Amino acid sequence: MNDFIFHNPDKVYFGKNQLQHLSEEILKLGKKALLVYGGGSIKKNGLYDSITEIAKNNGIELFEISGVEPNPRHSTVNKGATICKKENIDVVIAAGGGSTIDCAKGIATAALTENGDVWSLVSGGVWVTKALPVIAILTNAATGSEMDAWAVISNMDTNEKIGLGGSALIPKAAFENPEYSFTLPSYQTACGAFDIFNHVLDNYYFAGEATFDLVLEMQEAVMRTVVKWAPVAMKEPKNYEARSNLMWASSMALNTVLDAGTVHGCACHLMEHELSAYYDITHGHGLAIVTPRWLTYILDESTAPAIYRFGVKVFGIKENLSAMEGAKEAINALSDFCFKTLGLSSTLTDLNIDETNFKSMAEHACAGGPISGLKNLTSSDVEKIYKMCL
Amino acid sequence: MNDFIFHNPDKVYFGKNQLQHLSEEILKLGKKALLVYGGGSIKKNGLYDSITEIAKNNGIELFEISGVEPNPRHSTVNKGATICKKENIDVVIAAGGGSTIDCAKGIATAALTENGDVWSLVSGGVWVTKALPVIAILTNAATGSEMDAWAVISNMDTNEKIGLGGSALIPKAAFENPEYSFTLPSYQTACGAFDIFNHVLDNYYFAGEATFDLVLEMQEAVMRTVVKWAPVAMKEPKNYEARSNLMWASSMALNTVLDAGTVHGCACHLMEHELSAYYDITHGHGLAIVTPRWLTYILDESTAPAIYRFGVKVFGIKENLSAMEGAKEAINALSDFCFKTLGLSSTLTDLNIDETNFKSMAEHACAGGPISGLKNLTSSDVEKIYKMCL
Repeated sequence: MNDFIFHNPDKVYFGKNQLQHLSEEILKLGKKALLVYGGGSIKKNGLYDSITEIAKNNGIELFEISGVEPNPRHSTVNKGATICKKENIDVVIAAGGGSTIDCAKGIATAALTENGDVWSLVSGGVWVTKALPVIAILTNAATGSEMDAWAVISNMDTNEKIGLGGSALIPKAAFENPEYSFTLPSYQTACGAFDIFNHVLDNYYFAGEATFDLVLEMQEAVMRTVVKWAPVAMKEPKNYEARSNLMWASSMALNTVLDAGTVHGCACHLMEHELSAYYDITHGHGLAIVTPRWLTYILDESTAPAIYRFGVKVFGIKENLSAMEGAKEAINALSDFCFKTLGLSSTLTDLNIDETNFKSMAEHACAGGPISGLKNLTSSDVEKIYKMCL
Repeated sequence: MNDFIFHNPDKVYFGKNQLQHLSEEILKLGKKALLVYGGGSIKKNGLYDSITEIAKNNGIELFEISGVEPNPRHSTVNKGATICKKENIDVVIAAGGGSTIDCAKGIATAALTENGDVWSLVSGGVWVTKALPVIAILTNAATGSEMDAWAVISNMDTNEKIGLGGSALIPKAAFENPEYSFTLPSYQTACGAFDIFNHVLDNYYFAGEATFDLVLEMQEAVMRTVVKWAPVAMKEPKNYEARSNLMWASSMALNTVLDAGTVHGCACHLMEHELSAYYDITHGHGLAIVTPRWLTYILDESTAPAIYRFGVKVFGIKENLSAMEGAKEAINALSDFCFKTLGLSSTLTDLNIDETNFKSMAEHACAGGPISGLKNLTSSDVEKIYKMCL
């Protein structure tokens, strides 16, 4: 294991009756807020009305930007930043899923730059230490953005989807009411659940040699929880226990409790970001297609024990197999989870993606050097993995 | 599960090479620091010299109070508070185990009161929202004080050992170097490990009906880690992996990750505090004696399934038993862990404690009403449990 710093000052209000604390959290930061949201689901479920009423009752001036895309665009971020600059916004409030929160983080960052352009920061790999404060009101368990230091922004002009990171991007407060995810369709629930699952798996001790037993145990605990509760939430969308477990799992997966002392890995995420950047597919679905192929590709004598352990601990496969047999069963169990339990279609062909762009996508994915993980992946490896997904 | 607020802004520097960050953390808070420590083990392992050198090199004026007791006394706390008031101390630095950190928290609190007396706050059950900032440098994995909002202070005049709690008591920063615990004797390692274990078990879903599957899974993960690594640390005191797992487990057990959404339980802790208050015994040893008796006492048809699950998940006992048989095996496995693996003597008689004070101790323990948990315990119940420990 490695030395690490754990610091996550986000204040999370979790549960049914927490929005009453929204005004006190806003007023700590100022009186002018920009509300960021997506396609308007918050207008259907009453959240929009609640927020505007809270603002009105507490003398908070609320500005708005809506229509945030599922893979939020740098152009939308820049529009938000322009409002912040013009109106002297004190705090950016995101109400939605991970894309909305990521967009808000981008806005909060760009608002404090001279040119107001988030893309120059994203593409420049800047670590953000200065941004307007963000408050996240979460409606979808998936990205972990409500409690992490990251935002993923897309530039559809250049087919790029890149992470923007920095300590200033951790929200000051997050409101997580599992009831807000009751209206989420089964497909979105499945995609969100696999995003959570893969955040943990990408950091599992596949991520190099730095193992920390306690963290491994907790990673497995969170993955088991997703395996148990995702199908329940899909069948019973208003099951509070299922939605709660997924929502808190979303936050735990990326609040750094689960990668303390290990090497932060993101092999599948880096490969999937290219798919979303080129084809605008749903992130969690792309991950579900890529992940089993990735494990199959990297499977050899050296990686088999880790993959087998994953299968035993997360999917309960038998303990008396050879490492290689066990690892293969683990990958089968993972495939069954993705394509049977979660019901996601299993190939890129199903999503109308062919190999046309695989070479340039693979080169993009490895632009910063080989992708690290249990096995380092060159662009040639990544291209082969994409082909296995057809 | 219940609504909850998760907020732990403590910045933890974990690992071998982190003390280099001490000066920046102190200087954020001021230039006058009070160093609090115990019997002088930090002078033997070089930590004292490191701290004084860092202070000297960075223009930090360092005052000292040493000799903090294993169950820190209110009188020592008050002495420290007097120094803070007189010298206008900006920050209180604890270097030691949980007792030292608790003492520092008490000092930091009393320093901002008019009379400088911590006991009036402790006995008054005040929730502390105002205290000098505390930095914790941990040398012993046990109490979780390095990352929690609590301090336990003893008054030997009145045989009382009571918790002082408050958001202001969460350290601003904590330094956790597992190497500092290399010199810890086997007995102290065992007692610390069981303290960690019991912090989790006291909050396990024994703590009433509020269950949260993800949290249960993580609780079990942390308990398994203690079961695995405590005996390794006892046999190989310089095993970095063992010491790391125990040290981070100590922090995880009480940083509220493991009781999010559940009812915070502390049945065994409340019963043990009386033993330490009356007889000044080592807290973790007292807990190890009480815990298996507590489970035996509360075992019935309604509690058996929870206790059985605990046994299956934490000690790997068989899954095909009746709930009652399984629960009994779970308690046996726990007893074996306490008295064989950790090698702690198993009765209060072994610690020269007889039943003389049981009645008044039980009444003390229930002064705030019945102790809550899987079963509520009246003072008559507590007295019976003490007798089972003879």
